[in-house]
Amino acid sequence: MTPPSVNLAIALLHYPVYNKHGETVTTALTNLDLHDIARASKTFGLDRFYIVTPSADQRTLAQRIAGHWQEGWGADYNKDRKAALDIVRICDKLKTAVAEFQSGFSAPVRTIITGATQRSGSIGFDQLRQMLQTDLGQPYLLLLGTGWGLTEECFASADHILAPIAGAGTYNHLSVRSAAAIMLDRLRGTR
Amino acid sequence: MTPPSVNLAIALLHYPVYNKHGETVTTALTNLDLHDIARASKTFGLDRFYIVTPSADQRTLAQRIAGHWQEGWGADYNKDRKAALDIVRICDKLKTAVAEFQSGFSAPVRTIITGATQRSGSIGFDQLRQMLQTDLGQPYLLLLGTGWGLTEECFASADHILAPIAGAGTYNHLSVRSAAAIMLDRLRGTR
Repeated sequence: MTPPSVNLAIALLHYPVYNKHGETVTTALTNLDLHDIARASKTFGLDRFYIVTPSADQRTLAQRIAGHWQEGWGADYNKDRKAALDIVRICDKLKTAVAEFQSGFSAPVRTIITGATQRSGSIGFDQLRQMLQTDLGQPYLLLLGTGWGLTEECFASADHILAPIAGAGTYNHLSVRSAAAIMLDRLRGTR
Repeated sequence: MTPPSVNLAIALLHYPVYNKHGETVTTALTNLDLHDIARASKTFGLDRFYIVTPSADQRTLAQRIAGHWQEGWGADYNKDRKAALDIVRICDKLKTAVAEFQSGFSAPVRTIITGATQRSGSIGFDQLRQMLQTDLGQPYLLLLGTGWGLTEECFASADHILAPIAGAGTYNHLSVRSAAAIMLDRLRGTR
């Protein structure tokens, strides 16, 4: 398999994330997270999208969804879908995703965490876009959370925090699929 | 009910659109189109998102999905979801959506159509963003297609054609949910 060569990749984490009550949980895989984020990642030129879940059952399910379009009748039915799902890698934990992404680069992978709230020390989208363009040999892994967002421990251990997407008012409840699409456009889109 | 007051709204059309074979069809409603585009529209300050389908059964289904979060136990369970779905209006045809949107404005509604291919005479995102900011009394209805895209007749009868979202290469297969999110960010996002 070809190692990753594009210096931005996405990891969608299903653990450790908060549920509605602020408890740390493992969320279930959402079929369309896999499809939508794979298609958006591929559209914006990424060659890796990691689905991360500690549940073996959920990894099997993710593999089956991706596999249907890669090898099943779906591969013939929709070749564009296959091209997008070819960049998906299913991992048990973040460390595994980082190691796979690392295989394409000599500089250590840096993680970038995102959430819906403004935090001190965040970097902006323009700044990160610039960082991505300036050093193509520096890999950045963008961490996205499911459920009610990644836990505080994740924020403490990430290398960078990316500013939240600002909407037009106080309401800010994008799905992770929509947020991923906007982030990719801001970081790699052409106008 | 409060009439619309924001000069941009989205209409998601389930007819007339192409299927994979280039035939004109009515597509089935996708649950997450309704949720994701409503949440993104609300986040970027829109107060109308029209779901348009000629199928009475499908309109009933759309109403049931939206209604669950507006009036059912979902309304209590997730108030943010309710706020997003409050802007959804379900219509039988585009004309009905235009008329409802028109009720908030004296200037005639102008339609803007979008697709994945570059066409001559398209306006760019920056230009439309400027148009939206310059004349708050001029309503624009952004038409999004499901399936394999809106038919040529739709392109011929729209007032404006918006340039496609450019990715990083030749692959360009965003879901309509992802495309809507990116468009809203480009037209109304704050950096």
